[in-house]
Amino acid sequence: MNETTKQTPPGRFITVEGGEGVGKSSNMDFIADYLRKQDITVCRTREPGGTPFAEAVRELLVKRDAAPLTDKAELLLIFAARDSHLQDVILPALSRGEWVLCDRFTDATYAYQGQGRKLGEAAVAWLEQWIQGERRPDLTLLLDAPVSIGLERADKRGERDRFEQETVQFFQTIRETYLERAEAEPERFRRIDASQSLNQVQSQIQTELAQWIRQLPEALS
Amino acid sequence: MNETTKQTPPGRFITVEGGEGVGKSSNMDFIADYLRKQDITVCRTREPGGTPFAEAVRELLVKRDAAPLTDKAELLLIFAARDSHLQDVILPALSRGEWVLCDRFTDATYAYQGQGRKLGEAAVAWLEQWIQGERRPDLTLLLDAPVSIGLERADKRGERDRFEQETVQFFQTIRETYLERAEAEPERFRRIDASQSLNQVQSQIQTELAQWIRQLPEALS
Repeated sequence: MNETTKQTPPGRFITVEGGEGVGKSSNMDFIADYLRKQDITVCRTREPGGTPFAEAVRELLVKRDAAPLTDKAELLLIFAARDSHLQDVILPALSRGEWVLCDRFTDATYAYQGQGRKLGEAAVAWLEQWIQGERRPDLTLLLDAPVSIGLERADKRGERDRFEQETVQFFQTIRETYLERAEAEPERFRRIDASQSLNQVQSQIQTELAQWIRQLPEALS
Repeated sequence: MNETTKQTPPGRFITVEGGEGVGKSSNMDFIADYLRKQDITVCRTREPGGTPFAEAVRELLVKRDAAPLTDKAELLLIFAARDSHLQDVILPALSRGEWVLCDRFTDATYAYQGQGRKLGEAAVAWLEQWIQGERRPDLTLLLDAPVSIGLERADKRGERDRFEQETVQFFQTIRETYLERAEAEPERFRRIDASQSLNQVQSQIQTELAQWIRQLPEALS
């Protein structure tokens, strides 16, 4: 294949998932840096958010004390924000050949709303299909740690009030749902042991990413 | 049946539907007054709206220029607001035996989002079932007038800018969808000819309401 007909490799859609206190923020930084070092253009984003509309929806979710909302309304808002995020940020970036690195996506919805809030897998699945069609992340890094470790870390960061709103059982359900989803889709998921030290976690992330990138068609050709 | 065991008649759920310029606001006033004259306790409300959360959602829908949203996001927001409105206002009022008089409900969603925005009847139907279960209005008054008359009236009220955002075809589709729904559910719908003078319209509304109230079980017993 000569230079002029060479195709730009397609963009890839990577999501980072996990419960509270598993270290998503610092590891998002690490992953973005690592990808950029591989000469990959990274579009880093988060859910819910990523567009003015989706950020406005995020505000409604955060300010639920002032204007309480039902669990079903919460689920619908999340998918409303997701559609905006997909149409205006994620899909355009992918079609430019960029890699999208997203802090949480629909796996979080299955975990938090589907199981945590007991709205059920079927409702989430219907909305996922209606909003996303066949679009799914290409790779999902699941930062997994026992709930007690996550709670302890969040406590040290002074985020204890967020946790007092939910029971330990709630976070246990979130973790179990993530693990079940990872087991059901081993091709897409990589489970990262987030109970290790930050250095060890990042070393595991780097190994998994390097391995995943090596098996991509454009790397093999 | 003696006084102590007499049951309070159940609340009734009446919705008023119609396109732009058909005179919903002034007729809502008339209907509420008429019902109150029959010694009925009326809970008057509107969609989207009715709760602090639903009014916040309404703001997002109105301020779409500042934070544009997709058509699918619009549909999800409408049902998010509807769930809040149902759980916090409509269902509690009905269970207190009040009559709920609501300016627009799910028929409007079928007309505006389902057909007008071409999102399809199936998506609206899935969301309706998920949010409402079997709950439907007991009576729907459809204020119907040719699109040209509605446009002209709105023009006189200085609301022309709202119309310029949509084509006449859009409003034609809304009208046709309403008429099809009314034809499919003649038990629930009463079509009011809103092209008449306001006096004539209110006379027709009063006749329909009186007739409907007369056939209720508690009126017959």
